[in-house]
Amino acid sequence: MVKRIPTADPATLTARQLVQQLGDGVLSAEQATNACLARIESMEPAIHAWAHYDGQQALMQAKEADRRRARGLPLGPLHGVPIGLKDIIDARGMPTENGTALDAGKRPLEDATLVQRLRNAGAVILGKTVTSELAYFHPGPTTNPHDTARTPGGSSSGSAAAVASGMVPFTVGTQTNGSVIRPAAFCGVVGYKPSFGAVPRTGVLSAAQSLDQVGFFARSIDDVALAAAVMGPDGRDEGCNLNPGPLLDTALSAPPVTPDIAMVHTPFSERLEPATVEGFSELIEMLGSHGVETALPEVFGRGAGWLATIMASEMTRNLGHYAERDPEQVSDVFKSLMAQGQAIPAVDYLAARDMQLVLLEALEPLFERFDAIITPAAPGEAPADLSTTGDPIFCTLWTLCGLPTITLPLLTGVNGLPVGVQLVGAHGQDARLLRTARWLMTQCTSDEENET
Amino acid sequence: MVKRIPTADPATLTARQLVQQLGDGVLSAEQATNACLARIESMEPAIHAWAHYDGQQALMQAKEADRRRARGLPLGPLHGVPIGLKDIIDARGMPTENGTALDAGKRPLEDATLVQRLRNAGAVILGKTVTSELAYFHPGPTTNPHDTARTPGGSSSGSAAAVASGMVPFTVGTQTNGSVIRPAAFCGVVGYKPSFGAVPRTGVLSAAQSLDQVGFFARSIDDVALAAAVMGPDGRDEGCNLNPGPLLDTALSAPPVTPDIAMVHTPFSERLEPATVEGFSELIEMLGSHGVETALPEVFGRGAGWLATIMASEMTRNLGHYAERDPEQVSDVFKSLMAQGQAIPAVDYLAARDMQLVLLEALEPLFERFDAIITPAAPGEAPADLSTTGDPIFCTLWTLCGLPTITLPLLTGVNGLPVGVQLVGAHGQDARLLRTARWLMTQCTSDEENET
Repeated sequence: MVKRIPTADPATLTARQLVQQLGDGVLSAEQATNACLARIESMEPAIHAWAHYDGQQALMQAKEADRRRARGLPLGPLHGVPIGLKDIIDARGMPTENGTALDAGKRPLEDATLVQRLRNAGAVILGKTVTSELAYFHPGPTTNPHDTARTPGGSSSGSAAAVASGMVPFTVGTQTNGSVIRPAAFCGVVGYKPSFGAVPRTGVLSAAQSLDQVGFFARSIDDVALAAAVMGPDGRDEGCNLNPGPLLDTALSAPPVTPDIAMVHTPFSERLEPATVEGFSELIEMLGSHGVETALPEVFGRGAGWLATIMASEMTRNLGHYAERDPEQVSDVFKSLMAQGQAIPAVDYLAARDMQLVLLEALEPLFERFDAIITPAAPGEAPADLSTTGDPIFCTLWTLCGLPTITLPLLTGVNGLPVGVQLVGAHGQDARLLRTARWLMTQCTSDEENET
Repeated sequence: MVKRIPTADPATLTARQLVQQLGDGVLSAEQATNACLARIESMEPAIHAWAHYDGQQALMQAKEADRRRARGLPLGPLHGVPIGLKDIIDARGMPTENGTALDAGKRPLEDATLVQRLRNAGAVILGKTVTSELAYFHPGPTTNPHDTARTPGGSSSGSAAAVASGMVPFTVGTQTNGSVIRPAAFCGVVGYKPSFGAVPRTGVLSAAQSLDQVGFFARSIDDVALAAAVMGPDGRDEGCNLNPGPLLDTALSAPPVTPDIAMVHTPFSERLEPATVEGFSELIEMLGSHGVETALPEVFGRGAGWLATIMASEMTRNLGHYAERDPEQVSDVFKSLMAQGQAIPAVDYLAARDMQLVLLEALEPLFERFDAIITPAAPGEAPADLSTTGDPIFCTLWTLCGLPTITLPLLTGVNGLPVGVQLVGAHGQDARLLRTARWLMTQCTSDEENET
């Protein structure tokens, strides 16, 4: 069931494997970076994953990483690993264009806090990955590496496609509705959005501050955990108040326990493709006594409306100036969001904000009994349409509640394309979620091995 | 210049003096409580400071406090001190009626966090003090102890009047615009509103969560510091993230330093009574080289509008159900606020919220140079009109920015009534503010002594 990417090319190793090989002296950071750059050169013309990349700057960082290692200096957990950043995240020395011509050539003076943290961990910043326009729905040029006629999903389109096409082992994206989990699922990679409050957003485009959450793309659960472990508050993003680090380390080194998992029926089940429904039936069967089917309280049916209210209000406040500056340069779908946002009364916005907490509390009994919720990451395979980024609905409720969620490329659709399996954890219990994800991954892999 | 209240009656001692006398065995908590109850019995018919008080319950608490002391158990910093709570703050065993007939007889099951903290510090809860309707403008029956034809101010009307009339040495109120500082100034007592985020609001009526701040009324700076020192986060009020305690203790035991004070000219200066203007001229003269006159940046002129936008939006969301339940039972001024709130667009609300931070940052250079801002607490004396609670405008900007502020009864108006002098500190620097306030108080007192 699990998709595996060939590991002959150093560019396609997981971050942890790469760190291992760099540590063993099998490979230098410079070689790893060159391998990634070669892969980009060959595949980028078809994939369009990058808004900007800078081989020279990357090689300079890689050589410096090799020098640090040679001199015996202390090394971070991602030392020498080439990475990509969604092009709404500031990195010194590179433009941040936010997927809009209105920000063409805009250069930030400072790293985003999360970039600083990744640099300190030793990561080599290769470049900026394509985002849809202002992290909303209007797609960029990126295609799906599994079938270039299909969308990679969005808005973190390039982040997902770059990892899926083996250009880089790790990227960063953001999710305000379904912008990490959906593209990760469509592109067949691991996508992890930590709890709201775990990753500082200082230096990241503020779309909707009550919803914006940073997430990670990689080829393994270990890799996303490595990155999350260096996050936590920076004292500048008021919404960031969790410290996931130490717990994550513990969770991944602790012996796996058998988790209990709830398969929840959402109010959106009729949007699922038949192959997704079938795949989940197999999964629930495999889980046996550790999987229980259950329905969400009825109030969750209104969640998508509340997210839309918050998102339209806050994005209109935060990004309305783009449409005002030059309406010709922004998409119709963005202009329509701005019009929608202008019409929302403050009391409706505040009511929707209150409901975030109400829904979160309504899930408490479930997370007392279960380690995670298992649910589709998307309706099914990536749509064969480059004018859309696909349907985010299976991410909406978890984003609204700020719950940690991870998608694993465990299923395949009728066209042989990846279909994501999403696990959702209790707020702040990211370690428990990742432990559960690792258990499920192992379970599915050994099943496959038994079958062959 | 300083007003002094006679200290013959134990009910009129400051909390710290009372604690001292209780510790010395000069007085028991039961005697102190009885003294307060006697004072209430005699003055309440004219003052109407209490929505509810319960002599029996108070005496039970006082006797228990005396027993604890007799048994040598550990005692809190307010051990045996009778206090009052604004009637929007929950206390177990007493109603919370929020100044509206719609909540008549409503009884909370739990103490507000701040009440729990005060109980743990040893306070004896005497009862609930009158609030204006739902902590907004429609006044309750309370009169001003200095002249019962005048308003005590609001919305924490009873909290201010109870301390001013010597019924109790310490009370708690709240401020969403000018509801602590204004009544304290009109009633001639010390009123202190700590920084936004210093006092947990769990169990306090939520009027406007982005503005609501708890404050204290007493007859000395030491007393309000004592109470603030036991506050700090409870993990339930997300807006509460400061821990003022240890710093406050240090500030009050540290040797006084000579602070630098900025007298800022606000955009509302034309609303000041001539006697207030004159009093402030004397003050600035007294400050000499330690006082500098300066003007606020122009953008502050719009602050009152932003506060009104936030307040109307959030109060309409939070309290609109009262007007919907029974429009006959709510005042016209409250209904008009609800109508105003319904008409505010979400983007205007969000813009006003953003400006809170902009104004806060605009004040940073000022607080780098000065220890505090000195500014009037109100236009002047309490208006001779019981249908109003007076003008909150001199509190508005500081509430909007969440800055710590204290009013001291240092001036007198043309009718011999108290006029408050307000000191405003940098956010989170409550200790520095109280130290500055103590310095100013000492300065004015010795001036007076020099004169006599």
